[in-house]
Amino acid sequence: MKSGCVVRDIRRAEAGVIDGLAAAGVSTVHEAQGRSGLLASAIRPIYAGARIAGSAVTISAPPGDNWMLHVAIEQLQPGDILVLQPTSPCDDGYFGDLLATSALARGCRGLVINAGVRDVRDLTAMGFPVWSKTICAQGTVKATLGSVNIPIICAGASVDPGDVIVADDDGVCVVKRVDAASVLVAAQAREKNEEAKRARLATGELGLDIYRMRETLAAKGLRYE
Amino acid sequence: MKSGCVVRDIRRAEAGVIDGLAAAGVSTVHEAQGRSGLLASAIRPIYAGARIAGSAVTISAPPGDNWMLHVAIEQLQPGDILVLQPTSPCDDGYFGDLLATSALARGCRGLVINAGVRDVRDLTAMGFPVWSKTICAQGTVKATLGSVNIPIICAGASVDPGDVIVADDDGVCVVKRVDAASVLVAAQAREKNEEAKRARLATGELGLDIYRMRETLAAKGLRYE
Amino acid sequence: MKSGCVVRDIRRAEAGVIDGLAAAGVSTVHEAQGRSGLLASAIRPIYAGARIAGSAVTISAPPGDNWMLHVAIEQLQPGDILVLQPTSPCDDGYFGDLLATSALARGCRGLVINAGVRDVRDLTAMGFPVWSKTICAQGTVKATLGSVNIPIICAGASVDPGDVIVADDDGVCVVKRVDAASVLVAAQAREKNEEAKRARLATGELGLDIYRMRETLAAKGLRYE
Amino acid sequence: MKSGCVVRDIRRAEAGVIDGLAAAGVSTVHEAQGRSGLLASAIRPIYAGARIAGSAVTISAPPGDNWMLHVAIEQLQPGDILVLQPTSPCDDGYFGDLLATSALARGCRGLVINAGVRDVRDLTAMGFPVWSKTICAQGTVKATLGSVNIPIICAGASVDPGDVIVADDDGVCVVKRVDAASVLVAAQAREKNEEAKRARLATGELGLDIYRMRETLAAKGLRYE
Amino acid sequence: MKSGCVVRDIRRAEAGVIDGLAAAGVSTVHEAQGRSGLLASAIRPIYAGARIAGSAVTISAPPGDNWMLHVAIEQLQPGDILVLQPTSPCDDGYFGDLLATSALARGCRGLVINAGVRDVRDLTAMGFPVWSKTICAQGTVKATLGSVNIPIICAGASVDPGDVIVADDDGVCVVKRVDAASVLVAAQAREKNEEAKRARLATGELGLDIYRMRETLAAKGLRYE
Amino acid sequence: MKSGCVVRDIRRAEAGVIDGLAAAGVSTVHEAQGRSGLLASAIRPIYAGARIAGSAVTISAPPGDNWMLHVAIEQLQPGDILVLQPTSPCDDGYFGDLLATSALARGCRGLVINAGVRDVRDLTAMGFPVWSKTICAQGTVKATLGSVNIPIICAGASVDPGDVIVADDDGVCVVKRVDAASVLVAAQAREKNEEAKRARLATGELGLDIYRMRETLAAKGLRYE
Repeated sequence: MKSGCVVRDIRRAEAGVIDGLAAAGVSTVHEAQGRSGLLASAIRPIYAGARIAGSAVTISAPPGDNWMLHVAIEQLQPGDILVLQPTSPCDDGYFGDLLATSALARGCRGLVINAGVRDVRDLTAMGFPVWSKTICAQGTVKATLGSVNIPIICAGASVDPGDVIVADDDGVCVVKRVDAASVLVAAQAREKNEEAKRARLATGELGLDIYRMRETLAAKGLRYE
Repeated sequence: MKSGCVVRDIRRAEAGVIDGLAAAGVSTVHEAQGRSGLLASAIRPIYAGARIAGSAVTISAPPGDNWMLHVAIEQLQPGDILVLQPTSPCDDGYFGDLLATSALARGCRGLVINAGVRDVRDLTAMGFPVWSKTICAQGTVKATLGSVNIPIICAGASVDPGDVIVADDDGVCVVKRVDAASVLVAAQAREKNEEAKRARLATGELGLDIYRMRETLAAKGLRYE
Repeated sequence: MKSGCVVRDIRRAEAGVIDGLAAAGVSTVHEAQGRSGLLASAIRPIYAGARIAGSAVTISAPPGDNWMLHVAIEQLQPGDILVLQPTSPCDDGYFGDLLATSALARGCRGLVINAGVRDVRDLTAMGFPVWSKTICAQGTVKATLGSVNIPIICAGASVDPGDVIVADDDGVCVVKRVDAASVLVAAQAREKNEEAKRARLATGELGLDIYRMRETLAAKGLRYE
Repeated sequence: MKSGCVVRDIRRAEAGVIDGLAAAGVSTVHEAQGRSGLLASAIRPIYAGARIAGSAVTISAPPGDNWMLHVAIEQLQPGDILVLQPTSPCDDGYFGDLLATSALARGCRGLVINAGVRDVRDLTAMGFPVWSKTICAQGTVKATLGSVNIPIICAGASVDPGDVIVADDDGVCVVKRVDAASVLVAAQAREKNEEAKRARLATGELGLDIYRMRETLAAKGLRYE
Repeated sequence: MKSGCVVRDIRRAEAGVIDGLAAAGVSTVHEAQGRSGLLASAIRPIYAGARIAGSAVTISAPPGDNWMLHVAIEQLQPGDILVLQPTSPCDDGYFGDLLATSALARGCRGLVINAGVRDVRDLTAMGFPVWSKTICAQGTVKATLGSVNIPIICAGASVDPGDVIVADDDGVCVVKRVDAASVLVAAQAREKNEEAKRARLATGELGLDIYRMRETLAAKGLRYE
Repeated sequence: MKSGCVVRDIRRAEAGVIDGLAAAGVSTVHEAQGRSGLLASAIRPIYAGARIAGSAVTISAPPGDNWMLHVAIEQLQPGDILVLQPTSPCDDGYFGDLLATSALARGCRGLVINAGVRDVRDLTAMGFPVWSKTICAQGTVKATLGSVNIPIICAGASVDPGDVIVADDDGVCVVKRVDAASVLVAAQAREKNEEAKRARLATGELGLDIYRMRETLAAKGLRYE
C-alpha cells in the first residue's frame, strides 16, 4: 500500500442502476448479492432516514490527517460518495461542514468514514448524510500523504474506486461495479417476492406455512409441549 | 438447556396490570420491584419514544439462526412481546420487516433482542418497536433448532415465558408474572409520592431539605468551604 | 482527593462570554483554543439539537451513589451546568426527572455526566439536555460522600469549578474560566474566516486552491495517475 | 432481589463429583451438560494454568462496595468458591491479598467476580486463582448491604448457592448442584470418546472420515474446484 | 461470496522465504512492505513467545459453525496456517485440542481466527499457537456450508489462499504471495540497518542526532524552555 | 495546550522516596494517597511481574506520530519513566525495541503509554517494562510536533512532569511530586498495619471480627436465614 497516489480515472456504474440500488436499500441489496459487502455494523448514520447510493471515491488516510479529503473532493463527480478508511483506528473528526459544503458543490451524495465526523448539527441541516464510527469534535492535521481512488478495506469490506455504495439506516453495503446491474435485478426480484409474502403475512398466515418449515423442523426433532 | 423445545401453554399476567406497568415505565417499575430485572443498558430502542409492556414469549436461538422466530410467532397472543437471546454473542440481523409484519398480524407489541435487527426504517414506519444490541443488515440461516418459551437469561436478566416485559427509552425491565400486580401497586405508589416531591422541587425547594439530608451529611463529615 | 468537601464560592465567567461560546459551538470553540479541553467522544447527548454553555458546578461521586447531586444543586446559580465524574467507571443512572426538576428550578442549563442517566423521555420533554456515557434505569444509593466544586477530570478532560462548559451534538468541551473571553474572540474570528471560505467552497472552488495545497502536496511526492 | 440477606445453610455437591468436574475442565463440562452454564468470555483468569471446581458461595454486592465479601467469607467451607456479581457494572478491585488470605484460611479454592480484583502479584504468588472482568487497583467502600447465598446471575449465567463452579483457562462454567453427578458421567464419557478420536486424528486420519461428513457436505452442495 | 466452495489447488511461496519472514517477525515485515497487511490488534496470541510464518489456507465460516475447519484440514500441507473469518462477528470457540491434533498431524503451524478458541491449556501444552479474538468454551455446530481457500478479509486484512501469514507477540501480518521474496529482502535490509542503529543507540547516542532531526524540529517551531 | 514545547528543567522527587513507593506497589500507594491518581485499568503491562517507580517525563503526541519520543529521550535522567498521551485515541505502536534501547541507555525505567507498543518480545527479553492500552505492530510517522514535559492527562489521570509514576501488575498510579514523601510514609504505615491483619486473617480469624463489622451490619438490617 504505497501512499501518495491519486487515481483520476475511475469507472462508475450506470446512474440508473445506482439509483435502483438506493431504492432497494442496504438489507435487500446485501441479500441480493449473496450476503457480501457489508461494512461493520459499528458504522452508523449521523441522522435517521437517509437512503443513498453512489460511486465510491476511496480515500486511504493516516490517523488524524484529513489532507487527502481535499485531494479527493477534486476527483468527485456528481453522484459520488466519499469512502474514507484511516490506515489505523482513529476517532478524530476528519470531516465537517466546510468540507461538506465543498463536496456538495461537486455533487457528492454523502460520506462513509471508519473514523469520526463533526459539525453534525450543520451536516444534518444541510442534508448531507454521513455514516461514521463516531462523532468527535477533535480536528486533524494536514501533514502526511495518503491515497485517493485506490482499493481499500473499509470497516471490514473491500471497496474499489467506482464500486457502488448503498447506505441507509441499516448500515452500508458495497456492490462491485461490474456486478451492479445484476445485483439490481436480483434485488428487485427479491423485493417483488417479498411483497407477495408480506401481503400473506399481514393477514396472519404464518411463515411456518408459507415457507413449509413444519416438516423440516419436525425432522430436526422439534417437539411441542 | 436442551434445545428443540416449544412450550405452547404459558401463563400471562392480567392485561390491566400489564398496561399499568407500561404507563409507569421502566425506571419506575425497576425501582418499585427493588431494583431487579433490568436488562443490560446495551439494549437500546431503534427509535425514541416507544413505551410498551407485554407478556414475554421467549426464544433461545443459535448464533446467526432465526428459525425459532418463525416458530415463536405462532405462539404469540395479542399483547405479547418477543424476547430473543442467542446462545452465544451475535450481532446478526435476526428480524426485519417481514417478520414484523407477521408478528404485528398476531398482535405482538414489540421485540427485545440481545442481537441485531434490520429494516429499521420500515420498522420505524410501521411503529413496531425493537430494543436490540445493534442494527445490522447481516441476515441469518434456518438450520439449527433452538427453543421457544423456555426460561432464558437475556442481556443479564432472567426471563421466564409469561413474565411482563416493560420497555421504553430507559431500557428494558422484566417483572416476574406472579409479582406483576404487586409491583404495579408499588409503582403507582411511587409515582404518587414522586408527584408530590416534583411539585415541591419545581418551586425551588431543595432535596437536601425535603429528604432531610443535611444532618446525615454532616454526621458523615461533609464540610463546606 | 479528599472527599467530603463542598466549595461554595466559585468564580464564573461573564454571562455574555458564556453565551457567545454557546453560539460558536463545540467544534469551533475546541479549535479556537488550540484543540484542548475536549471530553471523550463516548459522552453523547440524550437528544439531538441542544447547544448550551454554562459555568461548571463539578461533582466527584462514588460509583453508584448520587448523594452529592443533591448537595450540588444547592450550589447552582442560573446559567450553571452540572458536571459529574464518578471516582471509578459506572453506568448507573445517577440523574432523572426529579433531580432535573430541581436543577431547572435553580436555573441549571444541563448536565454532563461520565456515567448513566434515566427518565430520558421526561428529560427530553422538559428540554433538559444531558450529555452522558450511557442511558440506564439502574438507580443509585445515598451512602458515601463525594465532593462538590473541586477540580475533577471528567471523561479525560480537566474541569475546574467555574470553567465554561460548551456542549452540543459534537460533544462537550471545557474552556478555562480565565481563557473564556479570549477563546470567544478567537472562535468568532474563526467563524468569520470560515464564512468566507464556505461561500467560496459553495461555488465549487476547491480547498486545494483556496488553501494553496497543490505545491506542498507535490513537494511531499503526491502523484496523479 | 431484596438485599441484606445471608443464607447460612446451603447444600453442596459431593466432593468427589466436584473434583471429577475440575479434572474434566470447563470446555468438556460445558459440552457434557448440553452447552449451558457458561459465563461470558470477558471473565478471564488472572494467571494461566489454574483449573479448579468448587461449590458456589454467591454474593450480590453494590457497585464499589465489598462489604458482603467479609460476610461471605464466614459462610465458606473448605472447597468453596466465591462468586460475586455487582448489582450494576463495576470495574473496582473488590478483592485483594488480605481477603485472599482470609478466604484461603477457610479453605476457599478461588474467586469468580464480574468486576475487578487487585494485588494480583500477591494472589499469583499465593496460588489463589481469580477469574475476573478486569484488574484494577481502585478500592471499594463498606457502606451498603448486599446479599450472600442468594440466586444470582453472574456474567450472564444463573448461579445458585451450592452450584458447582468449574474454572480454567477456557473460562468459567456453572453446573447445577443436582445435575453435578450426571454431568460428571457425561463429561467422562465424552473424554473417553475424545481420547479414541484424538489417537486416530494424531495419525493423520481426517475428521471428514471419522465423523463421516463427506456425504452430508456433498448433499448440502459443497463443491471442490 | 458464494459459499460452499473448496479450492484444492493453491500456490504457495517458497519455504525458505516463508521461514525468513518468520525470523524477521511481524513488526519488521509490516514495515518492510510499506505498512500494509496488518490484522486488527484485537487478534492476540493465546500464549506468549510463538513466532511463525506459513501459507494461508483460508476459511470463510458461518457464525457458530466450524464445519469448514474439518474440510480445510484436508487441504493443509506441511507449513500451512489456517486462517478463519466468520461471515459475521462471533466469539464462539471454533477450534480446540482435537482439531489441533488433526491439524498438527498434517503439518499445520498454527491458526489465526477472528473468533474464539478453546482448550487453550491443551493447545499451549501441545505448542500449537493460535491468534484469536477471544478465548471461549462455547462450541459450534456443523450445519451450514462456508468455503475454503477463497479470498477473505480477516480482521480487516485481505488474505488470499497461499499468502504468507506472519504471526508473533506483536500480532499477525499478511504478505501477498507474489511479494514474499521481495518483502523478505526489504525486511532483512531493514534489520541490518536497525542493527547498526541499535548499537549506536545502546551507547547513548540520540535518535535526534542519528536521524538528524534537530533541524527539522526547529524548522517546525519546536522550542525548548 | 500549545504544542511544540519542550521543558528541560523539571523537578523530581527524592530517589529514596521513589524506590520506597515502588516497593509499596500500586494498590497500596493508591490507597495511601486517598484513592487518587489511578490511570484507567485499560492500561496493562506487556509482561507480568514488573514493579517500578520513577519520575515522569511527559509526552503529548499527535495520533500516529512518535516524533516527540525522540525529543523526550534526550530529556531523560536515570530513574525516569516516559509517559505518553496521544492528543486523540490511538492504538498505533509508538514505541519498539530501538527506542527502548535508546531509553535504557539513558537510564529509563519504563514506559506508560495510552496507545500501542510493539516489539514486545524484544522488550520482554530486554526487561524493559511497558504499560500500554494495546499491542500493535502499526508504526507511526514523524511529521507533527507535540510537547515534552508539559502537564498531561494520561488515561484519565493528571500527570505533571516530575510526578512519581508507580506501576505494577495492578496498573499505574501517579503520585504528585510534592506529596511523594508523605504518601510513602502513609503507604508504609498501611503496609505495617496490613501485615498484622494478614497474620490474624491467616489463622482463620474473620474480618467481621477484626474490623468489628457485625454491629454495623446488623444496624443496617442484615439478616441471617
